[in-house]
Amino acid sequence: MKIDLNCDMGEGFGPWPMGDDEAMLDIVSSANVACGFHAGDPGTMFRTAATALRKGVAIGAHPGFNDLQGFGRRVIKGDSPADIERMIAYQIGALQAVAALAGHRVSYVKAHGSLNNMANEDEDLALAIARAIKGVDASLVNVCMPGLLMEKASEQIGVPVAREFFADRTYEDNGTLTSRKKPGSVLHDAETAAERVLRTLEDRAVMSVSGKRIPVTIDTICVHGDEPSAVAMARTIRQKLEASGISVTSFTVL
Amino acid sequence: MKIDLNCDMGEGFGPWPMGDDEAMLDIVSSANVACGFHAGDPGTMFRTAATALRKGVAIGAHPGFNDLQGFGRRVIKGDSPADIERMIAYQIGALQAVAALAGHRVSYVKAHGSLNNMANEDEDLALAIARAIKGVDASLVNVCMPGLLMEKASEQIGVPVAREFFADRTYEDNGTLTSRKKPGSVLHDAETAAERVLRTLEDRAVMSVSGKRIPVTIDTICVHGDEPSAVAMARTIRQKLEASGISVTSFTVL
Amino acid sequence: MKIDLNCDMGEGFGPWPMGDDEAMLDIVSSANVACGFHAGDPGTMFRTAATALRKGVAIGAHPGFNDLQGFGRRVIKGDSPADIERMIAYQIGALQAVAALAGHRVSYVKAHGSLNNMANEDEDLALAIARAIKGVDASLVNVCMPGLLMEKASEQIGVPVAREFFADRTYEDNGTLTSRKKPGSVLHDAETAAERVLRTLEDRAVMSVSGKRIPVTIDTICVHGDEPSAVAMARTIRQKLEASGISVTSFTVL
Amino acid sequence: MKIDLNCDMGEGFGPWPMGDDEAMLDIVSSANVACGFHAGDPGTMFRTAATALRKGVAIGAHPGFNDLQGFGRRVIKGDSPADIERMIAYQIGALQAVAALAGHRVSYVKAHGSLNNMANEDEDLALAIARAIKGVDASLVNVCMPGLLMEKASEQIGVPVAREFFADRTYEDNGTLTSRKKPGSVLHDAETAAERVLRTLEDRAVMSVSGKRIPVTIDTICVHGDEPSAVAMARTIRQKLEASGISVTSFTVL
Repeated sequence: MKIDLNCDMGEGFGPWPMGDDEAMLDIVSSANVACGFHAGDPGTMFRTAATALRKGVAIGAHPGFNDLQGFGRRVIKGDSPADIERMIAYQIGALQAVAALAGHRVSYVKAHGSLNNMANEDEDLALAIARAIKGVDASLVNVCMPGLLMEKASEQIGVPVAREFFADRTYEDNGTLTSRKKPGSVLHDAETAAERVLRTLEDRAVMSVSGKRIPVTIDTICVHGDEPSAVAMARTIRQKLEASGISVTSFTVL
Repeated sequence: MKIDLNCDMGEGFGPWPMGDDEAMLDIVSSANVACGFHAGDPGTMFRTAATALRKGVAIGAHPGFNDLQGFGRRVIKGDSPADIERMIAYQIGALQAVAALAGHRVSYVKAHGSLNNMANEDEDLALAIARAIKGVDASLVNVCMPGLLMEKASEQIGVPVAREFFADRTYEDNGTLTSRKKPGSVLHDAETAAERVLRTLEDRAVMSVSGKRIPVTIDTICVHGDEPSAVAMARTIRQKLEASGISVTSFTVL
Repeated sequence: MKIDLNCDMGEGFGPWPMGDDEAMLDIVSSANVACGFHAGDPGTMFRTAATALRKGVAIGAHPGFNDLQGFGRRVIKGDSPADIERMIAYQIGALQAVAALAGHRVSYVKAHGSLNNMANEDEDLALAIARAIKGVDASLVNVCMPGLLMEKASEQIGVPVAREFFADRTYEDNGTLTSRKKPGSVLHDAETAAERVLRTLEDRAVMSVSGKRIPVTIDTICVHGDEPSAVAMARTIRQKLEASGISVTSFTVL
Repeated sequence: MKIDLNCDMGEGFGPWPMGDDEAMLDIVSSANVACGFHAGDPGTMFRTAATALRKGVAIGAHPGFNDLQGFGRRVIKGDSPADIERMIAYQIGALQAVAALAGHRVSYVKAHGSLNNMANEDEDLALAIARAIKGVDASLVNVCMPGLLMEKASEQIGVPVAREFFADRTYEDNGTLTSRKKPGSVLHDAETAAERVLRTLEDRAVMSVSGKRIPVTIDTICVHGDEPSAVAMARTIRQKLEASGISVTSFTVL
């Protein structure tokens, strides 16, 4: 049995670093690379792609709203689905070209922050993202939360999907994440998170906060990289997976 | 005999339009599309590519400094050649992806504004641009001024070039453009410009302001699109060319 | 009797102009100057302030979301009221300083675009804007739509208000503007708009689309400047006002 | 005897922090606050001003080029002196207004990065900065390197100056800083830097790398805050100063 571990990377900008990408790239199998809109710049994108290649890590485009100050976490409304489609294509293509300089290639896409959240609440937006991905490169995989609108839109458009489980977040009955504002919605203990990941993979189901069992197939586990404790949690999760005979490997061919 | 006519396009941004792209795309055979750094945005890029495709016009990436306020005309120093290489690749890739949504493809690159000027004065910068182009897509043509550093760097790296002549500018003995600050350095009369274009093509040489004859092979004529009189001048040039039996067609396969 | 005419101004950015500010500044008595976030830049702000001073026109800060591409018309959610308060103060202060170079002074504030709309639907946001205005300069007047949240917040915080009527828009029963998406919600005929302005001032009431009479005191009439026909409509409105014995003059001391 | 210690502050942006401002504000007497162009945003500016006020630290505007990605360290050429004047005024005014919300006031200006360097090599630029400062508030002090163009321009325009000495940099015979590229040009040892500061104040002269004695009056010592060792060096300098009977206090009235 095998599973992918993905993490947001390359989220520095200009003089400002973020996270310990070097360490995380020793742990994960897929790096979601910021494309310059919510974070990242061409130099950071190149270095992330080059390091990922050297460490055998797949890279995906991690497009977001054009909102450096808000880190792509602000909700921005007013763009048409066509606008969003072109904005997503722009970012994917930008990373493809920068990755080409590094000798790497982009194998998947994962929408960032509020863009991702909004797509799971707005079918037109989800379809726009799926069309952008297919329009740029039909082999690109879209990383989606299972059972939500983005996955359905991808299937409708014909975009291959990888279903993701968040290692450090709790879930609602409808398969969405519990709001960060609710106490306990974010797991901080590495062992707890690792155990929950294992259980989810073994059960082939997510257990919601109310105790509801949501059957899912999981292709990739999302770990976070922007906090000091992130590397330790990711490492623990990887160790637990491997100790259980589950190998960590990209869901795509590098 | 045939020649290409190229023009900067898609240089609006957000709520602000620039130029009459619709009219210019009826006249030129190549559209240099701004890539969002000095002008342009994903929506504008898409519309420019879509209209160009419909009118049978080739498109090229027109990358510039990340300087909307200065329109890529300010000199920005401090980036390493490696930074520039990645910045150029970023913009080319972004346009490739957006153009793909429109069903079009990018066939060439032409550096914009002060980036272009600086590359003709700095070999490391010229090489960085050439490497970026080749690294992204080895079939891309680089539009260069004949005899200057960018052309030489392209040849050194192995990037095919298209040599360009500016219809409305005068030249110095070394093959560079006369500074805009000097009186008479910009031609405003369409007939004069058209005659000069014809003479340059027929003589296979540029005549400098001092009267020096600079032998050149010209593949493309640059016309400007950002002034009210631009469309009229471009149309006159096209008509004169065709009246002389020179057909206007892209230097690349669409 | 007298009334103020206000218009958005200085909404170019870098190489891109917008509107005919020179002409509009001959017609209006108050110029809402974009502060660099949704439009405008320091040079444009200076020239607008200098021209306004020369023509005896008052200037107000016209702060908006930091969203050039969306022109401040996109809804951006995720900033706290404290963030908004500081963002508004930043823009007011920036204009005050640039206006000082031109020898002019800022006498009022009018929030732009979706920020203004959102403030009339979110009391915390309206209070944040009012606090920002008072915190920067307690003599600044806030231009508000009568009867809505921004006016109430201003009164609560102790910010003087000028109540505005939109010359070219229709109104709902609750005093808000009819959505631009509804047919007929924007008046394009100058005579019709001018007549409606006069009637509103004489009746001291706005007539809604359903025929409801909403009593209001109007201090300023908003005319638009970003369309070709804008100058003509503004001029017609001014002429009608003056022909009816109503003088056009700023609501503040210059 | 007394002296001021100044340090760049508030140089985070959006999600990206920089430096340990909280610790530095316990050591220095003047905080150079980034104004949103090379770093900083309204929220960061507010927090810096509020913390400075609480700790009795004066604040100055630290305006730079509009270049977040390059952190204001890139040389940007092409703006007229008038453009620069308005850009500087914009940033000063923005900080004044945000500081007003925090109950603090801006008492000085110090140009940032390449803008500062360029002003000491271009009299027109230095004069533009001085005019901006005076035009916004004639009581603002300009922090300058002694003997260079910015100091002279300030005196010519009538802007009060505070002369600064860099604690961790070596000097050339003409009073400029030794290039960072030269070995030994940046001092990393806190004791060495502190000793040199004391000697410079006692001698009332800077000793250049070649051994030339340059007589100067120093009003403020610049310490850096963007490296991990920065706080330790600043603390050592302050302790040495106080141990020598020199009190650390702002050069302006708070």
